[in-house]
Amino acid sequence: MDMVRPSAIRDLLALGADPSILSFGGGYPDAALFPRDLLQGVFRDAIADPSGDPLQYAPSDGLPRLRAQIAALMTADGTPTTPDEVLILQGSQQGLDFAAKMLVNPGETILVEDPTFLGALIAFAPAQPRYAAIPMDAEGMDLDALERTLAETPDARLLYTVPDFQNPTGATLSLPRRHRLIDLANRHDLILLEDTPYRHIRFAGDSLPTLKSLDTEGRVIHLGSFSKILVPALRLGWAVAAPPLLERLSLLKVAADTQTSTLNMAATSLFLDRHDLQAHIATLRAAYRRKKEVMLDAIRQHFPQEVTVTDPDGGLFTWARFPEGFDATAFLRDHALPEARVAYVPGGTFFATHPRPNHARINFSAQSEDRIRQGIAALGACLKDHL
Amino acid sequence: MDMVRPSAIRDLLALGADPSILSFGGGYPDAALFPRDLLQGVFRDAIADPSGDPLQYAPSDGLPRLRAQIAALMTADGTPTTPDEVLILQGSQQGLDFAAKMLVNPGETILVEDPTFLGALIAFAPAQPRYAAIPMDAEGMDLDALERTLAETPDARLLYTVPDFQNPTGATLSLPRRHRLIDLANRHDLILLEDTPYRHIRFAGDSLPTLKSLDTEGRVIHLGSFSKILVPALRLGWAVAAPPLLERLSLLKVAADTQTSTLNMAATSLFLDRHDLQAHIATLRAAYRRKKEVMLDAIRQHFPQEVTVTDPDGGLFTWARFPEGFDATAFLRDHALPEARVAYVPGGTFFATHPRPNHARINFSAQSEDRIRQGIAALGACLKDHL
Repeated sequence: MDMVRPSAIRDLLALGADPSILSFGGGYPDAALFPRDLLQGVFRDAIADPSGDPLQYAPSDGLPRLRAQIAALMTADGTPTTPDEVLILQGSQQGLDFAAKMLVNPGETILVEDPTFLGALIAFAPAQPRYAAIPMDAEGMDLDALERTLAETPDARLLYTVPDFQNPTGATLSLPRRHRLIDLANRHDLILLEDTPYRHIRFAGDSLPTLKSLDTEGRVIHLGSFSKILVPALRLGWAVAAPPLLERLSLLKVAADTQTSTLNMAATSLFLDRHDLQAHIATLRAAYRRKKEVMLDAIRQHFPQEVTVTDPDGGLFTWARFPEGFDATAFLRDHALPEARVAYVPGGTFFATHPRPNHARINFSAQSEDRIRQGIAALGACLKDHL
Repeated sequence: MDMVRPSAIRDLLALGADPSILSFGGGYPDAALFPRDLLQGVFRDAIADPSGDPLQYAPSDGLPRLRAQIAALMTADGTPTTPDEVLILQGSQQGLDFAAKMLVNPGETILVEDPTFLGALIAFAPAQPRYAAIPMDAEGMDLDALERTLAETPDARLLYTVPDFQNPTGATLSLPRRHRLIDLANRHDLILLEDTPYRHIRFAGDSLPTLKSLDTEGRVIHLGSFSKILVPALRLGWAVAAPPLLERLSLLKVAADTQTSTLNMAATSLFLDRHDLQAHIATLRAAYRRKKEVMLDAIRQHFPQEVTVTDPDGGLFTWARFPEGFDATAFLRDHALPEARVAYVPGGTFFATHPRPNHARINFSAQSEDRIRQGIAALGACLKDHL
C-alpha cells in the first residue's frame, strides 16, 4: 500500500491550524457565508421528525428524496438525470476512491491533468496506479498531448478531470475540447471521471455543458458536491453514472461505510425543499468574484513582475508561476511563513509525475477582503526582498 | 471485484421498507429511545458556533476534542487509551473496509466466526479474501478449532471477531478464551479486528475486558461505534490501535473520504460534554433487556418446541435454530412474509463458507413490546402450521 507523501500533506494541514499564520493554503469556503440560520431550521426539524427516521439507518444509496432532488439539480443544470442514476457519497472524494478501486489494478495508468488535484492523487494511491500527466493550458487539458499519450499507454482506462475552474490552475475545459474528449473516450475505451466541486462558483458567463451531458456511451462518472455550495461539514457529495457503473459504485458504497449520515441527508433534503439554493449560490458567486478581484488587484500591486498568476472565471484558486529555479516549498518554509506569516500551497505536490517547484496555489475564498489585501501585500514584499 | 450476493441483501433491505410487514430483520435501535431533545440542543449550538468551525472542514483523523473524549470513554471502560490512538471513522463499518484493504491481499484468508456479521463479509469482499470460518459455541469462538485452522492456513493474518453479544448469535467470548486468543495471535502473527457495536448494551453482570485491553503486542484493532448508544444516523465510529497500525488506517481515511462529518463530530462532542452518556446507556440496557425478555417469553409460548433460540446477555439479537432440513429463506418467502406478515433475516447469509439454512437472526430492539408479542405469536402460529 503506497501512499502519497503523507508527511508533506500533514505539515501543510498543520499550517492552517496556526492562528498567527494568514493562510491562503486550504480550499475552504468562507465561513461567513454559511447559511447558518437556514441550517439551524432544517436540522431542528429533521431531528424533531416524529418518525425518528432522520436519526435512524437509511438506504445505502442515499435517501430517495435527496436522490430525486439531486437529479433535479443536475437536470436543471443541463444534465438530464433520473433519481436512480444518483448515488449519494461521503463527499465527492469518496467517488475518487471508488472509481480507482473499481477501474484500476496495481500498476495500471490513470490519466490526470498536469497539475492535478492533490486530493485525487491521495484517493487513488491505495489502488497503486501509475500516472500519465496531460499538460494544461488556458483551455484545460491539451488533447493533442492526450492523444499522443493514449497511443503510448494502451492500459489507460480511467481519466480524471476537473473541467470547471480546475484545482489548482483555475482553467476551464473549452467546449470544443469537451466534445473531443468524449470522442477520444469513445475511441479509446476510457472512463472519464468528471469532478465538479467548483462548477457552480462561476463569476461570469454561462456554464459549459458537463461532460456527462455530452456522454454518448455511458463513459462518464460525474461527481458533484454540496461542500462548496452549502457547507463542507456535511460531507455530502454524489455520483451520477450510467446503470452498469452506478451499480458497481453502489456496491462499493455498502462495503465502504454502509451509508452517508442520514441526518445530514435529511436536513439537506429539507433545505432544498424550503430554500432557494440558486439564490444562495448567486450570493457565493458575487462574494468570491469580489474576493478574486481583490486578490488579483493586490497581486498586481505587490508581487514582482516576474510572477504570473491565472485569472480564473470561477472556483476558489489562482495559480502562481514563479521564475524558473524558484522553489515554492523552500520559500514557504524559509521566508513566507517566518517573515510574511503567510501560507500558500507549494505547487510541486500537484504534479503527478514531474514536480515543477516554481508554482503555488493561492486560495481567495477563505479569507476576508481585508485579510487578502494584507496577506498579499506581506507576501509580495517578502517576494521582492528575495527574488 | 467480487461482491457478496448483493441482490439477496437488497431484497432483505427492501423488506424493511414495506410498512405492512412487521420486521425483526434489521439491527435498528429503537427510535423511541433516541435522545432527541438533547440532540436538538447540541446541533443547534454547534451550528450557531460563531467560529463557523463545526460547519467547515476538519482534520482527517477527527476533531481533537472528540478523539480525547473517546479515549476517555475507552479508558473508563478498562482500555487505557490516549487521544492519538483514536481515529474517527464513518461508522465502525469503515474500519472493516480499511482493515481488509490494509492487511489482506486477494486470495489470502480472513478468519471469521461461523456464523459472522454479514456486513463484515460485505466490507471485506472488495479485498477478495478467502475465509476460514471458526465454529461458535455459547462461549464464543471455539479456539481449539481456531488452532487447528491456523495450522492449516499459514497465510491467515487477520481475524475478525465480535466478542460481545455477537452478531448474529448473541454469544460472548469468555474471559479465558480472550486471554487464549491474544496468546494465539501473538504466536501466529495475527491482527485481531475487535468489533464492539453492542458492547455497552449489556443486560446483566460486568463487562469483560476488551481484547484491546489484553493486547500485549499491539495486535488488536478495536472498533467502537455511537450507532447503538446514541443514534445510527450520525455514522460515527472509531478505531483504537497501536501507532503503526493507526497511522496506516489514518492514511486510508484521508484517501477514502477525507474526513467524517465535522458537524456530527462537533455535535457529538458537545453531547458528551454536556450530557450523561452512561445514564442514557443505562436506559437503553433496561429497555432492550425488557424487550429481549418479552421476545423470549413469546417465543417459548408460541414457537414449536423443536425451534431453539439463544438467550444473549446483551446486544440486539437472538439466533434461532430450526430442525435440520428447514430452509429459513424459503420459509420467509413462502410463509412468514405472505402469511404471518413477519420478517427476520435468514441465517444462511451469515455463514462465510458453508451456509446452514436452518437458522434465522431475530432482532428484538427495533419493535415495541406489543409488536414483538404480536409478531412472534404470528410467526409461531405460522411455524406450527408448516413444521
